[in-house]
Amino acid sequence: MKREERQQLFDTAKQWVLEAGENIRTAIDEPLRIDTKSNANDLVTHMDQQTEKFFTEKIRREFPDHSILSEEGYGDNLDSDKGVIWIIDPIDGTMNFVHQKRNFAISIGIYQDGVGEIGLIYNVMDDVLYAARRGEGAYRNEKKLPQLKQELPLEEAILILNNFWTCPNHKIEETKMQSLVRKVRGTRSYGSAALELAYVAEGIADCYLTMKLAPWDIAGGMVLVNEVGGLTTKADGSPINILEQNTLLSCNGDIQEELVGEYIELK
Amino acid sequence: MKREERQQLFDTAKQWVLEAGENIRTAIDEPLRIDTKSNANDLVTHMDQQTEKFFTEKIRREFPDHSILSEEGYGDNLDSDKGVIWIIDPIDGTMNFVHQKRNFAISIGIYQDGVGEIGLIYNVMDDVLYAARRGEGAYRNEKKLPQLKQELPLEEAILILNNFWTCPNHKIEETKMQSLVRKVRGTRSYGSAALELAYVAEGIADCYLTMKLAPWDIAGGMVLVNEVGGLTTKADGSPINILEQNTLLSCNGDIQEELVGEYIELK
Repeated sequence: MKREERQQLFDTAKQWVLEAGENIRTAIDEPLRIDTKSNANDLVTHMDQQTEKFFTEKIRREFPDHSILSEEGYGDNLDSDKGVIWIIDPIDGTMNFVHQKRNFAISIGIYQDGVGEIGLIYNVMDDVLYAARRGEGAYRNEKKLPQLKQELPLEEAILILNNFWTCPNHKIEETKMQSLVRKVRGTRSYGSAALELAYVAEGIADCYLTMKLAPWDIAGGMVLVNEVGGLTTKADGSPINILEQNTLLSCNGDIQEELVGEYIELK
Repeated sequence: MKREERQQLFDTAKQWVLEAGENIRTAIDEPLRIDTKSNANDLVTHMDQQTEKFFTEKIRREFPDHSILSEEGYGDNLDSDKGVIWIIDPIDGTMNFVHQKRNFAISIGIYQDGVGEIGLIYNVMDDVLYAARRGEGAYRNEKKLPQLKQELPLEEAILILNNFWTCPNHKIEETKMQSLVRKVRGTRSYGSAALELAYVAEGIADCYLTMKLAPWDIAGGMVLVNEVGGLTTKADGSPINILEQNTLLSCNGDIQEELVGEYIELK
């Protein structure tokens, strides 16, 4: 994608994200209609659906040749990463949205032929926009984010890791995760994959590891983390296929090899 | 403590907390002098010390008959809870302060003869003050917090629980903690006990369980949680001695019995 095209697309997407966020803030105290999806804890609300529609309608009108991959079913069924694809999570962290009315984000990644060109993660209630364009750095609102620090010992790292993965599970050897918890300086869990990736990009956490994410959870954040010199891969260190559900390891590149080599043992 | 005395003390403490917070915000981007205390991850900075001094000097001047229990050593050695005691954590969540430059709090509890009269928890960077006076409710900035919801099934609860306690440890049976993680709707971990108690009071989390907290970590939060009808006890359900290090269970009273009876097995 040429720089000028990327810039125009970025400006448009950013404007829509801010507008969608404003709509959510306006409606935040209205009663929610809450349903569940794959299980009792996989929540969806009419605000997720309404926000996704807001984007899909605009994209189809303004960019009829672009494709859409999105969480709530208003996108396309894609079997190829060719062309320009908007990958959208209208509300990432729906459990936080429902229970906390904050700590959720709109996440958008715009990819061309599988390459992340634009990443936008909007912490709606805090009015904080993380934004990145390929090759042009990542920003938190107006502030350019520095490159991630080098020579970070794991002992001084903050790890984002949900309790699921230190408990017996079918995805990753939990005893090694338990060793990792003892090794790092501290662990956190915030409940929004998009924000957790933004925190890695910002350097307020040094690593985010999880076993099950959809494309819309990670597409925006991958672009952000790339732009500050971090790595985002599957948990085994292999490349992510952005059209599929993935495991995810996003971190300061300095510690990636150690994590993959010594702590991550997939089942 | 009479209402009028409590109100005057509250107004003074609140003013000092806001002033101390402003001082921290002003200095937030200056280089930090960081030391470690009991272990490599137990951090302290000159800002912790400076902020504690700010409070202790003011309290000794204005309220010479009050006692002080505080984290960084400028307080008193107390063996009785008689009289008025200020229990102070100048920066709760020092690891967040150092690594994130946000998500930390000033925490103050003012107790008389062991009874919590005033609680103040100030999220410095977000400029959000949680405040409570005994018998007069709890507030988040100007907004009065509602009583915690009743009839909350554990399956719909958000639990604040650090990974330590789902890993093998010397304090609590981890396999039962692992069952609890599978039972609840979701878990979170934020890295500041004071803020985590404030989140329970606010109802954005329904339970906070941890095995090792000092008086200054919990004194302010206990008053807040009390005021919205929540319970704060040791992890086995017994009363907290506010002068000692404690285990901690703070939650919606609706689920406390179930947690103590079925999930919490101390070692």
